[in-house]
Amino acid sequence: LIGGSLALALKKAGAVSHVCGFSRDAQNLTQAIELGIIDQGAKDLADCVKDADLVMLAVPLQAMRSIFSQIKPHLKAHAIISDVGSAKGIVVDYAREIWPEGLPSGFIPGHPIAGTEKSGVSAGFAELFNERKVILTPVSESSPQALETLTAVWQICGARVESMDAQTHDDILAATSHLPHVLAFGLVDLLAHHSEHEAIFRYAAGGFRDFTRIASSDPVMWRDICLTNKQAIAKNIRAYQQHLSLMLNLVEQADAQALEHLFTRAKHARDAFTDSLK
Amino acid sequence: LIGGSLALALKKAGAVSHVCGFSRDAQNLTQAIELGIIDQGAKDLADCVKDADLVMLAVPLQAMRSIFSQIKPHLKAHAIISDVGSAKGIVVDYAREIWPEGLPSGFIPGHPIAGTEKSGVSAGFAELFNERKVILTPVSESSPQALETLTAVWQICGARVESMDAQTHDDILAATSHLPHVLAFGLVDLLAHHSEHEAIFRYAAGGFRDFTRIASSDPVMWRDICLTNKQAIAKNIRAYQQHLSLMLNLVEQADAQALEHLFTRAKHARDAFTDSLK
Repeated sequence: LIGGSLALALKKAGAVSHVCGFSRDAQNLTQAIELGIIDQGAKDLADCVKDADLVMLAVPLQAMRSIFSQIKPHLKAHAIISDVGSAKGIVVDYAREIWPEGLPSGFIPGHPIAGTEKSGVSAGFAELFNERKVILTPVSESSPQALETLTAVWQICGARVESMDAQTHDDILAATSHLPHVLAFGLVDLLAHHSEHEAIFRYAAGGFRDFTRIASSDPVMWRDICLTNKQAIAKNIRAYQQHLSLMLNLVEQADAQALEHLFTRAKHARDAFTDSLK
Repeated sequence: LIGGSLALALKKAGAVSHVCGFSRDAQNLTQAIELGIIDQGAKDLADCVKDADLVMLAVPLQAMRSIFSQIKPHLKAHAIISDVGSAKGIVVDYAREIWPEGLPSGFIPGHPIAGTEKSGVSAGFAELFNERKVILTPVSESSPQALETLTAVWQICGARVESMDAQTHDDILAATSHLPHVLAFGLVDLLAHHSEHEAIFRYAAGGFRDFTRIASSDPVMWRDICLTNKQAIAKNIRAYQQHLSLMLNLVEQADAQALEHLFTRAKHARDAFTDSLK
């Protein structure tokens, strides 16, 4: 979804002369050529990257280390090496294991905050990144030229590009995306095991449907995110547990004033967030 | 919203000959008459209920006890006395305080699982209850005739009526509605106090918007729900805390298999719930 959409957007803008794709699944490559997403399917990774000015990894986080190791001997000097993974610290860690002598100047991890519930090359579309944020997390070795070029690449796709360090990215995404996913998966799983679970789901209404939508996300992808951004996610779960204990206490004490105050504060923050999207 | 919509639906169906409304706010009554929602605005509660075959209380939960006390001396024999509150045990408790000798045979609390984010008589519409569930919670004194009539009243409005005891209702709603609201309010409030809260809300995306939609609900109404269904909500928060501790442990242990298993189970339950709505 992400890799194919990026290729489509860059081709549509006339920003690339040749797109070479690689996939473990040959069928994907055939389909990508038929859909006009790539110009060529490579037989192996070495073949795919040897002439590339920009190498973009759109693979599960846990696959990154092995791919870095396989492409390292074949990269062009000054090639930009980036990715689209949902956690960034782990990508830097994997890369440092493969390049212990120091990372290439073109190495800049990235994360487009965009997607749909679908996946696969056939789900891609050129407008996916339009008006969406892309976070780049350059390392100390990253060259300003590479950052400038990669920023332009995403801007051509309509994205708003921002840079920050990998740790800040992981902390922010743990709070706004990873924690809510864990909470939603947890609620649905809890209720599915409730002795009254049939009744519970029968009487659930629109609010419940919205609240649990993200619990329909891909379990394997979320497993990988939990494993690769473990520290920040655990920290956020613990902070949430503390806040929930405080709320439980207010409910048990029937503290009307404090409950109303907290709910009002939350409503204002949520309404301000929604207004900021307009 | 709820009382006015019920009156509109019953009038539209030709199921009522005369609707008398009461409100603390005389302006509401004038508006309700102008909108054709009620036939008459009563000067006081006694006047409103003395000739009524059906008395429907659409007032905040915390106001019920006082209203029961005020209407008791003026009710017709065999009048149906019902309400539309989001918690039911507390309504039965309040009624038993006012009728210590035993509840009237027409007493049957109820809860239409319907609503919008709006409130007030001008927000009402006759189709609000169409295809929505209404839960009735008869007590031991409730007569089968009263239950049959009240069921017919809601069915005329297009609702699917089901009966259960008040405790079961409160347990189910605590899980499907009250707990998710507490969790959403809690998450937004936690993040609003985060040291990085500006960045956090700036990088939040569609999933976060859906997940936190219910945190825009009316704080006073939710305060009252927390106070009046305290036991069941506290029980559900504690169960959720336990489940979250289990998940935190899986994340900290990096238990890939158990995380994937839990996320997959949740996704299946959530997808099955969505399919059941189609």
